[in-house]
Amino acid sequence: MGGDHAPEEIIAGAVAAVREHGVRLVLVGRAARIRRELDLHGVLGTIPIVHADEALDMGEGALASWRKPRSSIAIACHLIKQGRASALVSAGSTAGVVATSRLRLKGQQGVVRPAIAVALPTRPRPTILLDAGATADVKPEGLVQFAALGTAYAQILLGVDRPTVGLLNIGTEPGKGNKLTKRAHELLATGSHGIEFAGNVEGHDLLGGRVDVIVADGFTGNIALKTVEGTVATAFTEIRDAMTSTPAARMGALLQRRRLQDLRDRLDPDTYGGGVLLGLNGTVVIAHGASRARAVTAACDLAHRLAAGRIVERIREQVAATRTSRFGRWTHGERDGDRPAEKPADRPGERVPEVPSPAADTVPDRKEPPAAP
Amino acid sequence: MGGDHAPEEIIAGAVAAVREHGVRLVLVGRAARIRRELDLHGVLGTIPIVHADEALDMGEGALASWRKPRSSIAIACHLIKQGRASALVSAGSTAGVVATSRLRLKGQQGVVRPAIAVALPTRPRPTILLDAGATADVKPEGLVQFAALGTAYAQILLGVDRPTVGLLNIGTEPGKGNKLTKRAHELLATGSHGIEFAGNVEGHDLLGGRVDVIVADGFTGNIALKTVEGTVATAFTEIRDAMTSTPAARMGALLQRRRLQDLRDRLDPDTYGGGVLLGLNGTVVIAHGASRARAVTAACDLAHRLAAGRIVERIREQVAATRTSRFGRWTHGERDGDRPAEKPADRPGERVPEVPSPAADTVPDRKEPPAAP
Repeated sequence: MGGDHAPEEIIAGAVAAVREHGVRLVLVGRAARIRRELDLHGVLGTIPIVHADEALDMGEGALASWRKPRSSIAIACHLIKQGRASALVSAGSTAGVVATSRLRLKGQQGVVRPAIAVALPTRPRPTILLDAGATADVKPEGLVQFAALGTAYAQILLGVDRPTVGLLNIGTEPGKGNKLTKRAHELLATGSHGIEFAGNVEGHDLLGGRVDVIVADGFTGNIALKTVEGTVATAFTEIRDAMTSTPAARMGALLQRRRLQDLRDRLDPDTYGGGVLLGLNGTVVIAHGASRARAVTAACDLAHRLAAGRIVERIREQVAATRTSRFGRWTHGERDGDRPAEKPADRPGERVPEVPSPAADTVPDRKEPPAAP
Repeated sequence: MGGDHAPEEIIAGAVAAVREHGVRLVLVGRAARIRRELDLHGVLGTIPIVHADEALDMGEGALASWRKPRSSIAIACHLIKQGRASALVSAGSTAGVVATSRLRLKGQQGVVRPAIAVALPTRPRPTILLDAGATADVKPEGLVQFAALGTAYAQILLGVDRPTVGLLNIGTEPGKGNKLTKRAHELLATGSHGIEFAGNVEGHDLLGGRVDVIVADGFTGNIALKTVEGTVATAFTEIRDAMTSTPAARMGALLQRRRLQDLRDRLDPDTYGGGVLLGLNGTVVIAHGASRARAVTAACDLAHRLAAGRIVERIREQVAATRTSRFGRWTHGERDGDRPAEKPADRPGERVPEVPSPAADTVPDRKEPPAAP
């Protein structure tokens, strides 16, 4: 139900994911509305539906996760906790999706803070950037964990055994940076945590394909990601203007149209499937709010691949490797993963509201392994 | 003497600045080498030279400012202190130039930390981004001062009376961001400091021309700037490849060549003159290390315009306005501007080395107002 073009484009994308990629999924949202859309696609009855009374509004932030216990995201998380799904996909408000899934799924054992990973369209293979905005303030040890999360993600997405990891910084030498990155560099450079650390990378290396994984705090990573997107959009607008400014240039543009469209697609965030929230007990793929069907299909396919690659288990192993290193004592602040389920008493006046069980008639009781909703 | 193509391209650029823009300047560096270059340009004797024994190496960082009291940068700073110049231009190592000029020129009265401002190639007029890397760790009050520095700079460069200022952040709503930007937003939103605050801007707004000035800490600003540069470079490489991939596309590219070259020039860091270190007792323009003559000319012209616009006085007025507001008490940490000249005793074992006076025969004793070296 989330996203600027929900539910039409979301459902169209999901249907395509089923048809073209063989993804098994459950649609969570207002059942009547979803049935109408599925009917239009001629697939009513073939894709299971779980009804959710509510949906997060695009403007809603973190508090929505408390206010709306029956939101489609909350119910999708519940399916994951029940083992009836392995991953969820949403194009809803990033803040709302992150807050709800942190609250419902909890951080996985040993993970201090979750991170959003995105795949930048570098060549010959994508570069993973994390954190793209889940955790704005992070400690140096948190960046080391992000390196572990990114390593696990890159192993599955890129199929490389020991992905190289760079630290996003403002100079290549070890002593460069702010307090956070200077210390994080020291920790990563010890090499005793199973991470293939390749040193600092700078802003102009983001699209250079120099490393497989680039690690940053969520503030810096979000600024960097949106700067790439905005700059690509500006460059294409300028080029389009330049190409159609004279008759000769217009003629030239016609001759190149198809090739340039291919290029634009590759640099378009729609085609690389959205961000993935890593570090929780379940995989959460967050598509752009502006996602159309194609982007939703890519996000469903990504969720499917990550679940098939057992991303949660891989992260557990990678994070365990950083914790057994000599820098592995986490003594600072609260952390998501080490706490048991949050007690209502921890937050006076607030309770984690109960999620109602999905109505039995809307989701089939399946014996197969869980699918991505 | 600084930069990848020094001194040939530096001197060529300076000569062009004198010829084409009427900038009055002094060349500081190894006199014999400079004379040889000026001779090649046929202008020997028309541009004054001040000899400097040493030059900072490109790899040298902050310590060089202590180790090399007779570097060309240190001597150029000395000319400013003597009132024989108003501004300096260098394509040397940013860390070295920033450290040397902070040490020699000192922060101007009331300025806690200096910032590097760059002009992004937005339309219809540039957007000023600061800090692009002078101060990696900054407090919320420091960001308010950067807004004041940027306001003064934009008044001169853009010729607008009340430039709008945006805070680089990871969401547009006031409550978004990390600890630093949340607090800085609160301070800026009071509106009691003579700054035309326009709220948060995001990474994709950098090239959107939404505001006149964008404020960030030096870490974030540097990442954002280099990300813009790297993305523009990647986009153009991709487009060139796309355009020459088939005979039809090659034909098209020929038809568009001139128009695309114009565009590329506008997005090329070389043409917008480099960064300006604001907040010291004198203006310091830092050109890219890779600067060729054209970039050096642009940097000299920029230094000339800022000196003519009395940037240091403007900053003093703007910063005074932030200090008389109710958030104007600066009680945290050391600050550059409020200290008198740094005492050698403050840093055991280190002394600010004396700069020798320039030899009297190499720089003319002039009665005119000071020029940009």
